[in-house]
Amino acid sequence: MCAFSYIGKRIPKPDAVEKATGRVIYGHDLKVPRMLHAKVLRSPLPHAHILHVDTSRAERLPGVKAVITADDFPPRRFGFAKDRTPLTGDKVRRVGDEVAAVAAVDEETAEEALELIRVEYEPLPAVFDPEEALKPDAPLIHEERGSNLFRHQEYVHGNPDRALDEADVVVEDVFELGYMQPTPLETCFCLAAFDPSGRLTVWSTTQIPFLLQRDLAEALGIPGHHIRIIQTAIGGGFGRGLDMYSFEPICVWLARKAGRPVRLAFTRQEEFIAAECRQPMRIWSRAGAMKDGRLWVRDVKVLLDNGAYVSWGTVTTLVFMETVGSLYRVPHARMVSDSVYTNNPITGAVRGFGNPQSTFVVETQMDRLAEAIGMDPLEFRLRNANRPFEETPQGIKVTSCGLKECLEAVAERIGWKHRHERRPQEGPVRRGIGIAATMNVGGGARIYRSDGCGAIVKVDDFGQVTVMTGATEIGQGSDVIVAQIVAEELGIPPETILIVNNDTALTPWDVGVHASRTTFIAGNAALIAAREVKRQILETAEELLEAAAEDLELRDGFVVVRGSPERRVPFDKVVRARHFRQGGEVIVGHGWYDPPNEMVGADGKGNISAAYGFGAQAIEVEVDLETGKVKPLRVISAHDVGRAINPMYVEGQIEGGVVMGLGYALLEELQVREGRVLNPTLLDYRLLTALDAPQIESVIIETDDPEGPFGAKGVGEMGTNPTAAAVANAIYDAVGVRITQLPITPERVLRAVESRK
Amino acid sequence: MCAFSYIGKRIPKPDAVEKATGRVIYGHDLKVPRMLHAKVLRSPLPHAHILHVDTSRAERLPGVKAVITADDFPPRRFGFAKDRTPLTGDKVRRVGDEVAAVAAVDEETAEEALELIRVEYEPLPAVFDPEEALKPDAPLIHEERGSNLFRHQEYVHGNPDRALDEADVVVEDVFELGYMQPTPLETCFCLAAFDPSGRLTVWSTTQIPFLLQRDLAEALGIPGHHIRIIQTAIGGGFGRGLDMYSFEPICVWLARKAGRPVRLAFTRQEEFIAAECRQPMRIWSRAGAMKDGRLWVRDVKVLLDNGAYVSWGTVTTLVFMETVGSLYRVPHARMVSDSVYTNNPITGAVRGFGNPQSTFVVETQMDRLAEAIGMDPLEFRLRNANRPFEETPQGIKVTSCGLKECLEAVAERIGWKHRHERRPQEGPVRRGIGIAATMNVGGGARIYRSDGCGAIVKVDDFGQVTVMTGATEIGQGSDVIVAQIVAEELGIPPETILIVNNDTALTPWDVGVHASRTTFIAGNAALIAAREVKRQILETAEELLEAAAEDLELRDGFVVVRGSPERRVPFDKVVRARHFRQGGEVIVGHGWYDPPNEMVGADGKGNISAAYGFGAQAIEVEVDLETGKVKPLRVISAHDVGRAINPMYVEGQIEGGVVMGLGYALLEELQVREGRVLNPTLLDYRLLTALDAPQIESVIIETDDPEGPFGAKGVGEMGTNPTAAAVANAIYDAVGVRITQLPITPERVLRAVESRK
Repeated sequence: MCAFSYIGKRIPKPDAVEKATGRVIYGHDLKVPRMLHAKVLRSPLPHAHILHVDTSRAERLPGVKAVITADDFPPRRFGFAKDRTPLTGDKVRRVGDEVAAVAAVDEETAEEALELIRVEYEPLPAVFDPEEALKPDAPLIHEERGSNLFRHQEYVHGNPDRALDEADVVVEDVFELGYMQPTPLETCFCLAAFDPSGRLTVWSTTQIPFLLQRDLAEALGIPGHHIRIIQTAIGGGFGRGLDMYSFEPICVWLARKAGRPVRLAFTRQEEFIAAECRQPMRIWSRAGAMKDGRLWVRDVKVLLDNGAYVSWGTVTTLVFMETVGSLYRVPHARMVSDSVYTNNPITGAVRGFGNPQSTFVVETQMDRLAEAIGMDPLEFRLRNANRPFEETPQGIKVTSCGLKECLEAVAERIGWKHRHERRPQEGPVRRGIGIAATMNVGGGARIYRSDGCGAIVKVDDFGQVTVMTGATEIGQGSDVIVAQIVAEELGIPPETILIVNNDTALTPWDVGVHASRTTFIAGNAALIAAREVKRQILETAEELLEAAAEDLELRDGFVVVRGSPERRVPFDKVVRARHFRQGGEVIVGHGWYDPPNEMVGADGKGNISAAYGFGAQAIEVEVDLETGKVKPLRVISAHDVGRAINPMYVEGQIEGGVVMGLGYALLEELQVREGRVLNPTLLDYRLLTALDAPQIESVIIETDDPEGPFGAKGVGEMGTNPTAAAVANAIYDAVGVRITQLPITPERVLRAVESRK
Repeated sequence: MCAFSYIGKRIPKPDAVEKATGRVIYGHDLKVPRMLHAKVLRSPLPHAHILHVDTSRAERLPGVKAVITADDFPPRRFGFAKDRTPLTGDKVRRVGDEVAAVAAVDEETAEEALELIRVEYEPLPAVFDPEEALKPDAPLIHEERGSNLFRHQEYVHGNPDRALDEADVVVEDVFELGYMQPTPLETCFCLAAFDPSGRLTVWSTTQIPFLLQRDLAEALGIPGHHIRIIQTAIGGGFGRGLDMYSFEPICVWLARKAGRPVRLAFTRQEEFIAAECRQPMRIWSRAGAMKDGRLWVRDVKVLLDNGAYVSWGTVTTLVFMETVGSLYRVPHARMVSDSVYTNNPITGAVRGFGNPQSTFVVETQMDRLAEAIGMDPLEFRLRNANRPFEETPQGIKVTSCGLKECLEAVAERIGWKHRHERRPQEGPVRRGIGIAATMNVGGGARIYRSDGCGAIVKVDDFGQVTVMTGATEIGQGSDVIVAQIVAEELGIPPETILIVNNDTALTPWDVGVHASRTTFIAGNAALIAAREVKRQILETAEELLEAAAEDLELRDGFVVVRGSPERRVPFDKVVRARHFRQGGEVIVGHGWYDPPNEMVGADGKGNISAAYGFGAQAIEVEVDLETGKVKPLRVISAHDVGRAINPMYVEGQIEGGVVMGLGYALLEELQVREGRVLNPTLLDYRLLTALDAPQIESVIIETDDPEGPFGAKGVGEMGTNPTAAAVANAIYDAVGVRITQLPITPERVLRAVESRK
């Protein structure tokens, strides 16, 4: 391995101080002249016809500048399934459905105006359980579809039916996974302003600026080239911003009607009711193994509750499928999934995108199979782990793969071999250790026709490098990652590089921040652009140093003749020499990178990502048999990230992922009854705080991916995936009960312990 | 001439509505969190040693966050002659010299703090007349220079001494030209903020963002790559922003010391006292002609009062020299100039940059020579006018040249031939018509090592084109000009093009907005970048349309097979076809243009600009013999602009130039006595308002310059140059008196009329 100057360095985030001291300007902080404040009137009913909306009193309220209903919009639909309109005019399909909206001089006036709007509803029978929703006599959410089934998907490789017969052991479970809210600290925000020539600028908490530009254009009939999306500093995303939701076109349309900029920011309660959450799933899963330790078969059926409208979140089953079919080498696998409309809250993308669910299923059953054949669960996993440069029956092309190393590392650190030696076997408080692995896309995920990203690199006469990247910084640190990659290529300190992003007018296209793709894809795009800049630099340095380009290297801010360190010229001097002359050239490079991955076919097969990250977690928990409370004590989380461009950020992603995974495992659940959210506050919906978090040890496994920039793969989501399974396995290790519902609340633990007696 | 789609179209400025309705955010309107307000303590004396500065009471005033004196700065000097420091520590050299500065929570507190600062001065003898300043016993302004003469310059071609003997007629005059203030409606403004990592952002009314970045770096010892200059929307420039002045480093240093953003905005009084103005000049000029109508010789001596410090304004003599040596074909010419330090207000660049002064001299004497040889002044001018593609003895390479056409056009429209037929020859109010011509740089002016500009053009998947141009928009309309040029090349409507500029971090380098260079140089840079984009578009369109690139054209938003209009593909579809594919490319082009002009040599020779604009004005005035009042009635202004990219903006520049020229001719004079400005308010310093302006008729002469973008040359300054001379010639025509002092006040007219009696 060659020595790097900037790759692998632990460079702190340059905005860390500003964020820690409260000086960062988030969307919520924005103020523009003449700005109005918007509020949305939402349905109190889960399913009802709208007979009449009367906004006349609201319109007359002083300070109200615009009131809109569905009639104000062009007859266009939006969303993944084109099943939504910004405001609904015919009927409401969920509690929280957007019925009318107001823009006023302040929030209080807008709230008051909402109270003056009269809506006459005719309640309809509603359906809240996806199994009920599939019955022939179920009320239809979207009549024109003729069914509440949104999508049925079947995947198979090998011969699962025969394999279930052949297998020496078969285990079978039903899993129930509830609603989890991504709960970024910053709620949904949008500020829309038209300029006098009709161009629209939207400041947004989106994670997909370029797709939002497209989606707004389609939803509202505005030419796309009239729309500029500027992503503000983001107080957390976690997938929430991966779709356009109703509030964005509502905000834009209010701005258009009022002729003034309009700001729309969710309250926390609104965030819980109207923003999206992780899909609840009911999963039937069977898995079989041979006594010699070969994993033999999986057979999984998934029922996914979309809620009233469909989003990108519905394709979480694709990711679910990968883990079922390819996390381990399994010769026979089947997965059948139904995504179903109900009158429940809307669901969408959340970090992991189906993977926390599937990993909980797969890794719970890996433990059960190991037990059934009498093999150590670690050994069983190692026996069936993926290996580098293998193609799975699903068509997934594993390149670099450190799954084995990850499993061994966490086992080693947690003291796996001796785990049963010292722990208390009596008394109310027991300890256990669980292990679980994960595979995650780490080189993009082709779910749109393009999985690409662009970059432009320009150099000024001080040698200041500006990178305009499509990459969307949402706090994960992509700005610095991109800077480190460009810095390495150009031999200049990363802190001298300015990253410009999150503005569709300035930066080249990108599909958005999701699928742990930014380091891999935006990194490669920036690298291509930087290489072009390097070529230009070397071309000019050849003249200045009277040496051939192949004998030159860029290092420490200089172009140096290899082997003759005294023959060198400063980077900025080369720039000026090329730049400041008649017929000269400004130094600019640009790049576009779209990874060599594939759209998954109708058969569920294909290489969705150009690289895959692997990881494993070992977790020690304490289970109180009297209270049912589970306390995580220690988490070891090892991840194959190809190469850690910035180990500090890799650790940040791992630690954040573990904390989110522990929340999913133990705490977080949006309580929904008859379509109503019962706990829409941060007091009642409990997140794991820093004080609740156990000791987390991150282990970085580097495998030097052949396609990644400087060998790197993505790591953004992985840390969340295996945590719930590792916790459940640890609980089983501690007290011998298997919990197959998430979150694993004290009640559920107690109930399981009781039923075992 | 081929037909253009967008070149030559009268596209209104997109921000016109916002400007007219007061919605544009100027620098003065900016607010950022924690922003402090700065005030500067200025010297009340024109020349004095500073014995002691006591800031202790000011520092103790609640609300004061930073107080600085010269001691706070590193020992560095700045400015054209490196004769300045941001705050002065040893002595003051002018009334208004910056002695200390304060940043406080509001302007009132900052003002109060200034009053608490005690400065002990020891007055020194001062000198206010440049002739006095050159005497051996004059007080020295900058002792270390040993003299108050800043620069002596000599230019000669032919044999002026012999030519003065040979000439059939010789005229001789002394001209006295006073202080004129550029008086943009927005006063000087600066907002400086450091981020936690030490990077500095400066929002500024500058006209030279990239040179300001360099100048701040040099003056303060900050690395240039840590400085970002963002130029706000500008409320007028007129040359005022062509140098860094003290207030900018003062503002930055206050921000550094206070650790908070600092805003510094001049009051109008401060603008008059401490911003720069057009150099006062005393000019001795002789000119000779032959009876056959040949202009034979010019001999000019200029004494220029720099004031206490030197700026770029000192090189106005270069421009002066051009008009002396090359406005007409003159076989013998000499010009000697002295630029002198005094204890007067500082001077700098103002629209025309020496040319209004020189044109007044040259065009007054053209009339006098014509009269002396008994030739019609128009005919005399036409006889000696420059012709296309001639090199003058000075080394100026005229390319396109419509001087003859301009003179003929204004004469025709004003009714030159019959001008004496209908006008009153008796009574107190007389009418007269005067004519004057001008030549101005119109293709850059090489006064810095680079006269270049860069551009980056990127195209998004909606076909939205973003142009990142070095061009500095200060209200002249360069944004739209650049858009029209790119639009023409790419066959898409200019209103779909987004222009990004005025931010050193985003845009490629440019020397700044001056010398009427933007259309020519930024236009060419954008054209080069657009051609590269076009090449990429055509490369992809070749595949899509199965046709060779040379058979394709870009028109109306499509790529079309020439001659087969049905074979076409939309522009944005081509972009997506190139973009959205693995191994695809984002469409980006970049360009750099540095014109083929030269630095003027020590001998004053060289082709300073790559093209020259020409123009002529005919002005009719009414002179009241009883009051001395001169009323301009009608102005015809014809200009050779190569090609009018946007005739509306050309007319705007001409009309604005004429109004400024009339102000220079008749109204505007900063009254300075013993270094003190006596009329530092808009009530006492009178500008020509819209109500005062006469009817102005603009005539555009197109000559298709071979080097200009689509044949265009610059027009920004020309309109101001000939006005004073045309007015003076018209006064002579009306009442037979020659005024050689500006402005031509009623008093001066009356005095001249009196002395003639």
